[in-house]
Amino acid sequence: MNPFLQRLSDACNATGSLVSIGLDPDPERMPVEIIDFNKGIIDATKDLVCTYKPNLAFYEALGMPGLEALRKTIDYIREVAPEVIILGDAKRGDIASTNAAYAKALFDVWGFDAITVNAFAGGESLEPFFKYEDKGVFVWCRSSNPGSQEFQDLRVSADGQEPRFYEWMAERSREWNTHGNVCLVVGATYPDQLSVVRERCPGMPVLIPAIGAQGGDLENSVKFGMDSEYPNIIINSSRSVLYASSDKDDFAQAARSVAQNLRDNINRILKLEGMKWP
Amino acid sequence: MNPFLQRLSDACNATGSLVSIGLDPDPERMPVEIIDFNKGIIDATKDLVCTYKPNLAFYEALGMPGLEALRKTIDYIREVAPEVIILGDAKRGDIASTNAAYAKALFDVWGFDAITVNAFAGGESLEPFFKYEDKGVFVWCRSSNPGSQEFQDLRVSADGQEPRFYEWMAERSREWNTHGNVCLVVGATYPDQLSVVRERCPGMPVLIPAIGAQGGDLENSVKFGMDSEYPNIIINSSRSVLYASSDKDDFAQAARSVAQNLRDNINRILKLEGMKWP
Repeated sequence: MNPFLQRLSDACNATGSLVSIGLDPDPERMPVEIIDFNKGIIDATKDLVCTYKPNLAFYEALGMPGLEALRKTIDYIREVAPEVIILGDAKRGDIASTNAAYAKALFDVWGFDAITVNAFAGGESLEPFFKYEDKGVFVWCRSSNPGSQEFQDLRVSADGQEPRFYEWMAERSREWNTHGNVCLVVGATYPDQLSVVRERCPGMPVLIPAIGAQGGDLENSVKFGMDSEYPNIIINSSRSVLYASSDKDDFAQAARSVAQNLRDNINRILKLEGMKWP
Repeated sequence: MNPFLQRLSDACNATGSLVSIGLDPDPERMPVEIIDFNKGIIDATKDLVCTYKPNLAFYEALGMPGLEALRKTIDYIREVAPEVIILGDAKRGDIASTNAAYAKALFDVWGFDAITVNAFAGGESLEPFFKYEDKGVFVWCRSSNPGSQEFQDLRVSADGQEPRFYEWMAERSREWNTHGNVCLVVGATYPDQLSVVRERCPGMPVLIPAIGAQGGDLENSVKFGMDSEYPNIIINSSRSVLYASSDKDDFAQAARSVAQNLRDNINRILKLEGMKWP
């Protein structure tokens, strides 16, 4: 088994959880300073998640202090929850020589276990990411936003057929997966498309964002995203967990409740579907 | 005229140059420290360029010191060459709420005049960038890398026709351009595709990277990229200018020679094509 997939399944098995929490700081909604906020969320939820997923945009928007907070957040997770996967949500993608620099930034400098990437420039451009064999590379295949269909649902002429663009991207991602570390991102707002991706990509983990504030469909995301032998899904929620309460004495506990409910709901759905996990 | 397009044409007219230099630091090839290197390049070329284009990947790969060097580089350009456009090459793209954070990071925190973006999630996702009306938003339409055809040359079913994906992206970009600040990126390695994009998008500036180390075709890039009334192209070279000499006493002057040649060659081609500029 690829070492990243092993680490990911170890993290899921350790907490019996497929939950990822998106650590996306919004100064207008946090009742305390960013690093104290993140530490509070991490302390309250670290036994309930397999993954923390900081989206770099929200740290970059705060300038150097934001990036310093990201550094401290990563270090803190390593200290108190060393088994949990840290997924840098960066959607990076450029030509290969530039992607080599992004890979260095994300894997060597920040030290993420996994990242999200943008495959617009094709598989050749992504090789510098893929060749970090012990790191997960999540290809953004179907985005969760309302305008995602503009390009992603277009029918393309490929391989003598007419798949949708996102479907063809899933197919290509499977072909690129020679090191075993290619994974996918498909928004929970599009469970039918998730089903298509799962069929095309057995054995590949799928990150499913947009549960909560974005209104993704949990039940169908789990049903249509789960693999045959092992779930192979990560269900991410950000704002609905982080900002469950705006009270400085209560936000962490409120986040814990939402995360716990999410974990338990996912596991209940899996059980009803006959998946023997956790 | 849109205020960014006005600023860009002022910058081109002031130096009689359509040249952009990509400030992409590579510690293994720079004979002096990064900020001294960038200052040397800027001092030696600022009267020869319309644009400096730092690619964020190369700064992020150096960690916090790299980002501090980017800060100082931007500040230095503002100080010594206030008319020159600073284009943050970041290829950012995510869902709209995340893009709002990236827009804040790139336009408000870093202070770029323009940026490159990735349109995979569609025009709706890019609105937070577009609404900065006085900033240029360069949609990555046709990448310069050898694997770009994997997705970008696919034929898509759109509008009752079968355009290539990059062509349809150009068409959509024109539709998105309600504020007048949408521009495009098309690699110099694909002049035929550049011609198609120019036909679809009259009046929209096109950034043309990959002249030099990547082997782009200058003559055809200028011919096929130029607009009818005004060039509306920015020709970028990075490595072949920056690393023209590895001698610490000579690298800046060597860069100046390459930049000057590039400017003059572009203008010679334009003149032969009958463009009354500069």
